[in-house]
Amino acid sequence: MQDPATALTLPDPLPLDSGATLSPVRIAYQQYGELSPARDNVVLIFHALTGDQYVASPHPATGKPGWWDRMVGPGKPIDTDRFCVICANVIGGCMGSTGPASEGPGGTRYGQNFPVVTIHDMVRAIARLLDALGVDRLHAAVGGSMGGMQALAFASQFPSRAERVLVLASAARQSAQNIAFHEVGRQAIMADANWKGGEYYDGDHPDAGLAVARMAAHITYLSEAGLTEKFGRRLQQRPDGTDGAKSFGFEADFEVESYLRYQGSGFTRRFDANSYLYITRAMDYFDLAEEHGGRLADAFASTTSRFCVVSFDTDWLYPTEEGRHIVRALNAAGAPVSFVELSSPYGHDGFLLETPGLDEVVQGFVS
Amino acid sequence: MQDPATALTLPDPLPLDSGATLSPVRIAYQQYGELSPARDNVVLIFHALTGDQYVASPHPATGKPGWWDRMVGPGKPIDTDRFCVICANVIGGCMGSTGPASEGPGGTRYGQNFPVVTIHDMVRAIARLLDALGVDRLHAAVGGSMGGMQALAFASQFPSRAERVLVLASAARQSAQNIAFHEVGRQAIMADANWKGGEYYDGDHPDAGLAVARMAAHITYLSEAGLTEKFGRRLQQRPDGTDGAKSFGFEADFEVESYLRYQGSGFTRRFDANSYLYITRAMDYFDLAEEHGGRLADAFASTTSRFCVVSFDTDWLYPTEEGRHIVRALNAAGAPVSFVELSSPYGHDGFLLETPGLDEVVQGFVS
Repeated sequence: MQDPATALTLPDPLPLDSGATLSPVRIAYQQYGELSPARDNVVLIFHALTGDQYVASPHPATGKPGWWDRMVGPGKPIDTDRFCVICANVIGGCMGSTGPASEGPGGTRYGQNFPVVTIHDMVRAIARLLDALGVDRLHAAVGGSMGGMQALAFASQFPSRAERVLVLASAARQSAQNIAFHEVGRQAIMADANWKGGEYYDGDHPDAGLAVARMAAHITYLSEAGLTEKFGRRLQQRPDGTDGAKSFGFEADFEVESYLRYQGSGFTRRFDANSYLYITRAMDYFDLAEEHGGRLADAFASTTSRFCVVSFDTDWLYPTEEGRHIVRALNAAGAPVSFVELSSPYGHDGFLLETPGLDEVVQGFVS
Repeated sequence: MQDPATALTLPDPLPLDSGATLSPVRIAYQQYGELSPARDNVVLIFHALTGDQYVASPHPATGKPGWWDRMVGPGKPIDTDRFCVICANVIGGCMGSTGPASEGPGGTRYGQNFPVVTIHDMVRAIARLLDALGVDRLHAAVGGSMGGMQALAFASQFPSRAERVLVLASAARQSAQNIAFHEVGRQAIMADANWKGGEYYDGDHPDAGLAVARMAAHITYLSEAGLTEKFGRRLQQRPDGTDGAKSFGFEADFEVESYLRYQGSGFTRRFDANSYLYITRAMDYFDLAEEHGGRLADAFASTTSRFCVVSFDTDWLYPTEEGRHIVRALNAAGAPVSFVELSSPYGHDGFLLETPGLDEVVQGFVS
């Protein structure tokens, strides 16, 4: 799970919202494109819950292309011939940044002794990475889903550090329904006998529970119509190549069952169950208005950034209403903001996939 | 889990859609109100996935009121002063009808040796119960959710046996998304180390997995707006009575988390995990059109029943479009049908709760 990635250890301990302090803090990151001599061409990308820093290069564990390979690269909407794209693994994660699978000060792995971190903590750590890299001001901060939460938190914490802030398929707070789905995932992990209170690193990992968590989450990433179109009630072909038939058993008869099982088991090969607990917790705790007396506009009171908010019409995890809520707050704060709802069949995953108009919006705003 | 309920053992083995035969078949049922001398005042109610025959009397395991107590009783919309209401536990269930926890022919509990049953099998078994009770023709067949699937299946199998068929919050087929949610629940159960391939009856039950399955399902029974209204992001009061605060841990900080955990653990005290597997499978296999060459109208070709289909505007499990699909087929079959979409904040649970207009629709149609 740990990866010999490009990484940097922060010079100072990191104070956390919980009151705890994290030290040492290692931040693993990837860089695409050249930093300009003036260090003013950085596009910082924040990754989503199960994402990582491998935006535009193959994932070291799976060998698959980067998760936003279609968006980031030479000549692509976020053009690495012009921009220096940086993406860091969040703290609490499992791709090289300090997280529950890392060795703590006592020389043993943290497990559940890792402190609960927040979206703000993640962003604070990444800002310190920028400090260490000598990047004062960003050309743009960009993120989808949990990445969008981080982009908003970054804009709020550092009101003059990003020229542009692009938020996709995201929200300024986690809804009750989304907390509920996360809680199901956490309970699935904790119900796995291999979880052992998080102390599983020397034995079998709670893969079955983690797979169930991923399956439940995966349904929320797609739209009902998308699932119907992609799978409907189609039955799986049999291993011998014959057409699908009901097995009258509990094998994966339907294609959608087989797809979910594949998603679940694949996920366990690249993700740490404790990280899943910590990162979902960070998202659930996120409520930018709450920290500002219930008034979201106050979170952006002194911002100098320009904003763009993008929602997707079939996204029921972070529906358009959440995007509108952000936009109204930015309007109230007097910040320049553009807002677009794109039409996509892909639900929440719309920001990752070939959604008509998405490339133009991203390229237009970031350039 | 087994209950000394009113029950009857069918005189003959029951042939199943899978090709297997179930024998013996015990059907546990409850009766409310008196059977008229002409035996023509029966309202048959089909229960939902986790429902049972205790429609209007306290549940023997939980002591809670019957699941449709507000709808069924003397002077209530389904008036037991006039009608004889019968509800039977489905085969595959765990409240006294033959299911995976029952002893099979070899004298040991079935477990996973119980045959996979279908919605049609459930209905066939209940029809044989009616035969045994000497009830030829129903005043009405009524069901919500999986109960609605059974009502449709009953109307299709027995085109002249019900004068009225009332279908609430249901569908003529299980959607890909619903199959997906069921599969998550099944995988959660099967991932529990106590499940042991279904052979757990002599030891610890897979309660943790079953609770996760219930939690995931429970989210789908509510609406996003309903969850927000009921819980929002409110934090739990602490056991010492102080106001809620983030624990920066994995306790149930949010009320919605606590609610889900409560729903999950309560469920394991009254339901059998293997039954959950079998009954969800039966629902997933349900596609009334498929059995009639893809034309749903043909399922009702020779019906003599009058129909009423009710949907709920916030039900995203069986949305209004599924109801319309049934109505169009009944129209095409020339069957008299009325259709109403009720407005409710409760999502799929709207048919069980105080939804404006619901009592009037049910009473008006059934009377």
